[in-house]
Amino acid sequence: MDFDLDRAIAVLRRSPATLRALLDGLDEPWIRGNEGPETFSPFDVVGHLIDGEETDWIPRARIILAQRFQPYDRFRHLTRNVGRSSESLLTEFARLRTANLQQLESWKLGATELDLPGEHPSLGRVTLRQLLAAWVVHDLGHLAQVARVMAKQYRDEVGPWLSFLPVLTDHPVPRS
Amino acid sequence: MDFDLDRAIAVLRRSPATLRALLDGLDEPWIRGNEGPETFSPFDVVGHLIDGEETDWIPRARIILAQRFQPYDRFRHLTRNVGRSSESLLTEFARLRTANLQQLESWKLGATELDLPGEHPSLGRVTLRQLLAAWVVHDLGHLAQVARVMAKQYRDEVGPWLSFLPVLTDHPVPRS
Repeated sequence: MDFDLDRAIAVLRRSPATLRALLDGLDEPWIRGNEGPETFSPFDVVGHLIDGEETDWIPRARIILAQRFQPYDRFRHLTRNVGRSSESLLTEFARLRTANLQQLESWKLGATELDLPGEHPSLGRVTLRQLLAAWVVHDLGHLAQVARVMAKQYRDEVGPWLSFLPVLTDHPVPRS
Repeated sequence: MDFDLDRAIAVLRRSPATLRALLDGLDEPWIRGNEGPETFSPFDVVGHLIDGEETDWIPRARIILAQRFQPYDRFRHLTRNVGRSSESLLTEFARLRTANLQQLESWKLGATELDLPGEHPSLGRVTLRQLLAAWVVHDLGHLAQVARVMAKQYRDEVGPWLSFLPVLTDHPVPRS
């Protein structure tokens, strides 16, 4: 499937409501459960996505439209969101995403702009198109992670069904 | 995390709206893309969850409260849903899930009933508690699958970000 800006925005626009539909109103064991030490809970994932809104995707797109990235702190949210509710994070994520998509659409990017290069601190040369495609995939990877982390909270409850439910044994060391 | 009926129902209740938030209104390349031959697209996953509502979880719970399972056809939906829209499937899934949770709640299950055994065709003895926990995990596994399958549609679009986005290289032979 080729990158298409409208089609990418269609997914990016849905992430806050998808996470809200899945998480809002669930109690702490679902929201705070993780896959072990130094892994993300659903709460942490939403915090990480907020960091992305504030410090990664649109700031980097802006830099491509000017030039050269700053490194992105994947753990900024862990100290930033201590003591906050998941409702507060879901609301903040939705607000930031809406504003960032308005910004993105306001640029009226065409094929020429999407081909513009930027310099990633470790990946080297990337294009604006690749940055925006990675943003979509990043959302979807973390949505899959939230579902997996939640599923694992019932790992010891499904009995013999364990062998039919591979999501329970996926990624003991998390990859997304 | 121990199985708790109210906490399980809280997740089961959210699945239709989560899938609707993610999928409703997306165009065909997102809805119909899969991971290769004989793998499920997001459309197929919703069809599979509908099959579960009609033929698996609650029918099996009913049998435990009486006895002995029928095998479950994991591919019933592939012929059943030819020519249907994803909107139609999302609506049907929400309707069936609502009815099945009403049924489940009407039984007012306590610890004694949750310990009742049933006989799975290949797994052998299972309890009603394990069946209901597996239902929750099954939802979450397929939600993770939908997100992963969608992410993979941009596999060739992210350029050097491929190495930072493990969801793109997950499960070439799908496990959930």
